[in-house]
Amino acid sequence: MSKRLRMVDVIAHKKDGKEHSEEEIKFLVNGIKNKTIPDYQISAWLMAVNIRGMTEKESAILAHEIAKSGEILDLSAIGDYIIDKHSTGGVGDKTTIILIPLLAAAGVPVAKLSGRGLGHTGGTIDKLESIPGFNTALKINDFINTVKIHKCAIASQTNNLAPVDGTLYALRDVTATVASIPLIASSVVSKKIASGANVIVLDVKCGNGAFMKSVDEARNLSQTMVDIGKYLNKSIVSVITDMEQPLGNAVGNSLEIIESIETLKNKGPKDLTELCLYLGAISLVKSNKAATIREGKEILAELLSNGKAFEQFKLLIKNQGGDVSYIDSPDKFPSSKYKFEFKAPKGGFIREINAMDIGKLCKILGAGRETKEDTIDHTVGIVLNKKVGDIVEADDLIATIHANTQEEGEATLKLFDQAIAYSDIQITAPELIIDTIGH
Amino acid sequence: MSKRLRMVDVIAHKKDGKEHSEEEIKFLVNGIKNKTIPDYQISAWLMAVNIRGMTEKESAILAHEIAKSGEILDLSAIGDYIIDKHSTGGVGDKTTIILIPLLAAAGVPVAKLSGRGLGHTGGTIDKLESIPGFNTALKINDFINTVKIHKCAIASQTNNLAPVDGTLYALRDVTATVASIPLIASSVVSKKIASGANVIVLDVKCGNGAFMKSVDEARNLSQTMVDIGKYLNKSIVSVITDMEQPLGNAVGNSLEIIESIETLKNKGPKDLTELCLYLGAISLVKSNKAATIREGKEILAELLSNGKAFEQFKLLIKNQGGDVSYIDSPDKFPSSKYKFEFKAPKGGFIREINAMDIGKLCKILGAGRETKEDTIDHTVGIVLNKKVGDIVEADDLIATIHANTQEEGEATLKLFDQAIAYSDIQITAPELIIDTIGH
Repeated sequence: MSKRLRMVDVIAHKKDGKEHSEEEIKFLVNGIKNKTIPDYQISAWLMAVNIRGMTEKESAILAHEIAKSGEILDLSAIGDYIIDKHSTGGVGDKTTIILIPLLAAAGVPVAKLSGRGLGHTGGTIDKLESIPGFNTALKINDFINTVKIHKCAIASQTNNLAPVDGTLYALRDVTATVASIPLIASSVVSKKIASGANVIVLDVKCGNGAFMKSVDEARNLSQTMVDIGKYLNKSIVSVITDMEQPLGNAVGNSLEIIESIETLKNKGPKDLTELCLYLGAISLVKSNKAATIREGKEILAELLSNGKAFEQFKLLIKNQGGDVSYIDSPDKFPSSKYKFEFKAPKGGFIREINAMDIGKLCKILGAGRETKEDTIDHTVGIVLNKKVGDIVEADDLIATIHANTQEEGEATLKLFDQAIAYSDIQITAPELIIDTIGH
Repeated sequence: MSKRLRMVDVIAHKKDGKEHSEEEIKFLVNGIKNKTIPDYQISAWLMAVNIRGMTEKESAILAHEIAKSGEILDLSAIGDYIIDKHSTGGVGDKTTIILIPLLAAAGVPVAKLSGRGLGHTGGTIDKLESIPGFNTALKINDFINTVKIHKCAIASQTNNLAPVDGTLYALRDVTATVASIPLIASSVVSKKIASGANVIVLDVKCGNGAFMKSVDEARNLSQTMVDIGKYLNKSIVSVITDMEQPLGNAVGNSLEIIESIETLKNKGPKDLTELCLYLGAISLVKSNKAATIREGKEILAELLSNGKAFEQFKLLIKNQGGDVSYIDSPDKFPSSKYKFEFKAPKGGFIREINAMDIGKLCKILGAGRETKEDTIDHTVGIVLNKKVGDIVEADDLIATIHANTQEEGEATLKLFDQAIAYSDIQITAPELIIDTIGH
């Protein structure tokens, strides 16, 4: 029999830079779950992990134990391959909304659980709730049945999933221990395991508008998550993509739904379409529906141009109680009271559209929430007319600001100038897809 | 005006290895005092400090702010030099009990505040309470007046002194953050500042029976405390002394009082007497009562041999309500029920008497306490008849075990063998005084 573990010794091991045993991590996660380990011990441990790090083995065991701290969905009735696509979050990122129907149209079942976000704009669920009637509070059996029959569904994450992750995140947030690669990686993977997927496609955003500021950090996080996947026998691919400027043109809740509809009709922005095809193609390859990424992209491009992806989206919305007439006629979406136009002060090339700044401006307009209790304004946001690399002449429209008060609109217009930089010489548009790890 | 501080940013600074500003440390200590900073944030910060360290400047400001978190005694009415001698704690360490009257007899006022200890045996206060009637719960004015008239007094530390130190220590104890040099140094110095001393003589014990196991660690701690003193304009000297074997011969509460009486009558063990003369001589030099350590030792040796130190001890005991007849006739102290003799199994030289092991055996006998609520047995303990370097023949008495139950005594006798090591070749007694820093 092994001797009884004490949390103070577990903390001391990590403080001294040692690797935790599986027994120690189980003890820790159980103690957090059962509330037998007080917060002050958990936070001391979090700081030790933050500074000393964890091995892939430790991170994998932690992810697995956190997943096991709650319900683990059994989606095996749906099929052999259950895809989950997850983004670490960026400004204007609506790829999930497009990928769910796109992959479903290609015959890959997608059972997507998603959260509401704190941040500059809402999360995927918040955005979809711009559509009147759309309901994500599905019972688990209805959720699974819908995917079995109609190939896709999206539900809001319940608190039963990886509950220890919630406790850890709340403590990390107030103890300066958020920015730890092994803790971020374990957190992401734990939720994906709990949600029943076996093919996990991760989009790690990288740049000023993302949590990972440098490519090195993004690569490190990606490699850690891929390694955790290998250890736990889950297929994980991580794609590192640019988040120096917003993705697509629209930032804001209903504005992004409208752009998603456009994209599903094959009339979306080039960068957004490119990313959806790439992430989708990887998902097809991983679920044995395409031999190569090239083939996967061709299949998906066809589904965008022949209208099948768009039809699948309407089915998704209808299945979950949404008013499909909004999808057919996006001009039905309520518009903000005020619109302000930001125009080029001079001619030249767009050198920078700072994603973080644009995100913050959308927050000022009311598109996001600071605390769980805040409500979000679905109509406000920013729609770009130009992207990095574009040429402009003086007075060309660069962006439209959608505001619900004159003050917020004017404040945003005033600050907008600081988010943009120009160049006299030609600028190459940045590479959107920086690297792919685990493929 | 500086922007409002947030604890999460203070933690982040230390996590990133940055130096805290004075403003940050004040914010931190005030927040701990006013309970506006929750324990889980304090413990994350403690772990960051433990791993990243603190500069002398940070440690000094922290010590000062912790002192200011409670009452700071004003002892200036007593005289220009107010001595405080502090030991980091070791097995058989009764030097404080001897030094108080010895220095007072030399004309140096000693206003000593002391704590009860958790550990193998009681603290100084616990040991003195072996003397019937002796009272350390003095009111502060009575305490100061007694020192003004009679040159010395000893009182138990109140909770008003450096209260933030208590909060920090309780958290460090359960979060594996005790062993941090800057935190230990700030804690020790904060209490010395709060107790009103301006000349602080520290005895940093070093060896298996002490918290500092290596000379390097002891030197590091000593240097940090001396540097803090310089920064705060307090005269701090730190003497590093050996704690591989117990100090003196007696370990246990009333047993150590009896040995202190012997030492004050100039009939004490050689090592204990030597250490008292050295620490005392440094105190005399620092308070301008002696020009050199050599001169200081001569003055003090004279006070031991002419009986004046012993008379001063009787006065101290009498002033605080103790029964002086016990000091005159130490055989009045109640004796333990059982005595067991440990005899040399063979002839040779004593190579080791493991201080930590002897301490643990005394704990088994009941001489110490595990929690604040435990009571201690004043009569039990161990008296050594031999020390490291001594020659023994088979069956020579090495130690007498004083026990109050047959089982505890027999268990101790059985384990005692493991605390001792022998050598066939001659062994030099270890150097007691290893280094002096800040003199």
